[in-house]
Amino acid sequence: MDSMHVDTIMQQASQAFEQYKRIKPAQRAAFLETIAAEIVARKDMLVQMAGEETNLPAARLNGEIGRTTHQLQMFANLIKEGSWVEAVIDTKPNIRKMLIPVGPVVVFGASNFPFAFSTAGGDTASALAAGASVVIKGHPAHQRTSLLVFEAIQAAITQSGMPLYTVQHVTGDYHIGKELVMHPATTSVGFTGSFQGGKALVAYAAQRETPIPVFAEMGSVNPVVLLPEALQTRATELATTFATSITLGAGQFCTNPGLLIGLQSEAFTQFQQLLGAAMEQTSPQRMLHPGIHQAFLKGRSEMLAQQEVSLLEHPAQIVDDTMVGPSLALTSGAALLANPALKEEVFGPHALLVACKDKAELLQVLKSLKGQLTTSIMATTNDLANWQEVVELQISLAGRIILNNPPTGVEVCAAMMHGGPYPATTDARYTSVGTAAIRRWVRPICFQQFSDDLLPDELKQNNPCGIWRLVDNTFTR
Amino acid sequence: MDSMHVDTIMQQASQAFEQYKRIKPAQRAAFLETIAAEIVARKDMLVQMAGEETNLPAARLNGEIGRTTHQLQMFANLIKEGSWVEAVIDTKPNIRKMLIPVGPVVVFGASNFPFAFSTAGGDTASALAAGASVVIKGHPAHQRTSLLVFEAIQAAITQSGMPLYTVQHVTGDYHIGKELVMHPATTSVGFTGSFQGGKALVAYAAQRETPIPVFAEMGSVNPVVLLPEALQTRATELATTFATSITLGAGQFCTNPGLLIGLQSEAFTQFQQLLGAAMEQTSPQRMLHPGIHQAFLKGRSEMLAQQEVSLLEHPAQIVDDTMVGPSLALTSGAALLANPALKEEVFGPHALLVACKDKAELLQVLKSLKGQLTTSIMATTNDLANWQEVVELQISLAGRIILNNPPTGVEVCAAMMHGGPYPATTDARYTSVGTAAIRRWVRPICFQQFSDDLLPDELKQNNPCGIWRLVDNTFTR
Repeated sequence: MDSMHVDTIMQQASQAFEQYKRIKPAQRAAFLETIAAEIVARKDMLVQMAGEETNLPAARLNGEIGRTTHQLQMFANLIKEGSWVEAVIDTKPNIRKMLIPVGPVVVFGASNFPFAFSTAGGDTASALAAGASVVIKGHPAHQRTSLLVFEAIQAAITQSGMPLYTVQHVTGDYHIGKELVMHPATTSVGFTGSFQGGKALVAYAAQRETPIPVFAEMGSVNPVVLLPEALQTRATELATTFATSITLGAGQFCTNPGLLIGLQSEAFTQFQQLLGAAMEQTSPQRMLHPGIHQAFLKGRSEMLAQQEVSLLEHPAQIVDDTMVGPSLALTSGAALLANPALKEEVFGPHALLVACKDKAELLQVLKSLKGQLTTSIMATTNDLANWQEVVELQISLAGRIILNNPPTGVEVCAAMMHGGPYPATTDARYTSVGTAAIRRWVRPICFQQFSDDLLPDELKQNNPCGIWRLVDNTFTR
Repeated sequence: MDSMHVDTIMQQASQAFEQYKRIKPAQRAAFLETIAAEIVARKDMLVQMAGEETNLPAARLNGEIGRTTHQLQMFANLIKEGSWVEAVIDTKPNIRKMLIPVGPVVVFGASNFPFAFSTAGGDTASALAAGASVVIKGHPAHQRTSLLVFEAIQAAITQSGMPLYTVQHVTGDYHIGKELVMHPATTSVGFTGSFQGGKALVAYAAQRETPIPVFAEMGSVNPVVLLPEALQTRATELATTFATSITLGAGQFCTNPGLLIGLQSEAFTQFQQLLGAAMEQTSPQRMLHPGIHQAFLKGRSEMLAQQEVSLLEHPAQIVDDTMVGPSLALTSGAALLANPALKEEVFGPHALLVACKDKAELLQVLKSLKGQLTTSIMATTNDLANWQEVVELQISLAGRIILNNPPTGVEVCAAMMHGGPYPATTDARYTSVGTAAIRRWVRPICFQQFSDDLLPDELKQNNPCGIWRLVDNTFTR
């Protein structure tokens, strides 16, 4: 594919946008539901194909398809209800505003979620719900799966009578990605992947004559704080929980817990042993592809080569280009404070325990960390009373704080925040999961002194859409 | 001032933020109201001082102080009511989110609004309402006024018992501005000024290890479309309206109408003559300072030196380092399409009429324009029926569309959108005027599995704040 092709694709996306943005919410909702139905119709084939391309087990892939169709249905429901446009009306003077789509959106498929964060995943679903046309850059690691999901979308386009180029699919290497981001017709970008990848896209977007936002979710070590009484009273349960969380999906989740922080103590040592033993019980798993596998082995080796990092749980020696066993390492709070390399993400089934000598050091460790998607705290009521500063620091650190649960498992719902301070994401004000993900693709438009017949339905005086609106500073329906 | 000073200032801002963010909304609201009272207490002196520094007439300055105190009161009311935090609760599983302040905000005072967009203006008021500490970079063109407003803020800090460094004031040249934007403790920037200035701040922010958002409002030509029947039936009224709008405040408003676009016709020619005559009636005015005056003369000369631009209304020859008379020029749609220089803003009392040969050319002219704060349309009911494509194009072009009114006069209210596609602002998703301006300084934080006693009041199960919340996908109070 060359730039001329990208130009054609983006011009088509622009033309489709001009038509698609005019389509009523109810029809857009039906379109999203039809995409879901077309995916379900291809479910067996999709699970088989994605299994071959990603090494993910069928149960996980079936679950992920369920999550994907749930997302499509959630956004369909959101736009059918309609209040998401945030209509605000001041009647004196007559000023009215609401959210409208910005234009064609480029979505980069993620390698670790072939369905839920890829071709018909949350970015695409939220953009289509908003009224934006979408150009998907399929992830090369699951290209056949991506094309089959796109086939489902195309079937839905035809069935629902949507503009032909409402959604387009592009394959190719990072040059194509750059061309897509830099094309003048592109208005926003959604990306889930590595820090290097996200940063490169942001740089391209900034070079444009008209810069555009890149919503990049770039990973996280998701620090977990284990407080003393919780460790004393629930070490076994916590060890089981985190052995599962660390190894879930071969550790290939953006919410994978990479740092487990506690106070140096007998309870912490016991937890280490229990966790190591529980991890040892888990079976080796296949990673997504040889590239990720190699990156994991390299990252882990580099981490283990750092001073004052000791391996607690030795990974099984497996000669295979994707198979890995989990591993666990230990360092001290002082070592982590002295060496930024220890705060880096190792994407895979590996975690680093951090033993702090006292409360002050533990707080210092938290303060020293970069922005995160999530942070968790394992604590009893007494712990929380004695360690109030921890939660305060965690609020500054991440987009989501989880109490007495592991960070893996991102619920798709209205209250979800899947985003956090840089470098976890490029914009901590936005989430890529849950209904609020739609806000990335819209901007407010304000009409002054327009009469009812000239206004969009959402802003007409008698509220024909029956949506919640702020009218003269009062919420009303 | 040197970098060490900036470092001290920003560290103080950080420490103040840690305390200030914990202060309850009712007390923050009282603080904003006290700032307003302290400004009113200094009103006469402020008007006199600002008159000396900005050449703006007393009536305008009095009005602007009223706008400033109104803004402070509006944000006080917003946080007393409390629903602005956008609390979202899903009870199964127990996930709850709300907006929290991001941290210290740097605000750059604007030259053209010594009160409403400066020291205690909308950026400062909205940031303080959100719970952020603020560092103000006073505009050098009205430094004494800025310091006197800051004195009012300091008096309010003392009276209200707020942390001493909740608001700080810095003077100096653009080097200090750069240091402030690049300091690691700065989390957001508010700016109203030139494109060059805004672009430079964005570049500094992008160079940081942790990039931060710069909300820059950078000007606009605010294109006005005059449709045929409106011109035929209301030429005299429109000429009066636009003569006033173009010369209001010596044309030194970001919503000043710089391009007046219509169809080449007898009615358009008649409107030109009437507008020219009406502008001739306006008295010469003083611009803010010699620098802006010089830039205006230079910009106007460059505009008039362009091919196919003819001067309709000759400016009075005034020998003075700030005084100017208005001027009006004419070009064709074809000339504007051929020469991007004709689309540039001339900041001051000058407008360019654009006579298009037909509808297609007029639409082409609109399509060719860059992002704008506002765009207006003068039209009868018949015009609107015959020219539907114009409004469609205007929606794509700007943040606010005004029907049968001039763009000057930005109402401070909930429905206002003062922001628009690049390069009008750096982020078309945000406004710098109205209650929604608070959203620039906040991000969502999400609590998972937290019990009521550990949650902020806004998220507790029984809604002690009595705010509107989305609970299990239903709006409720």
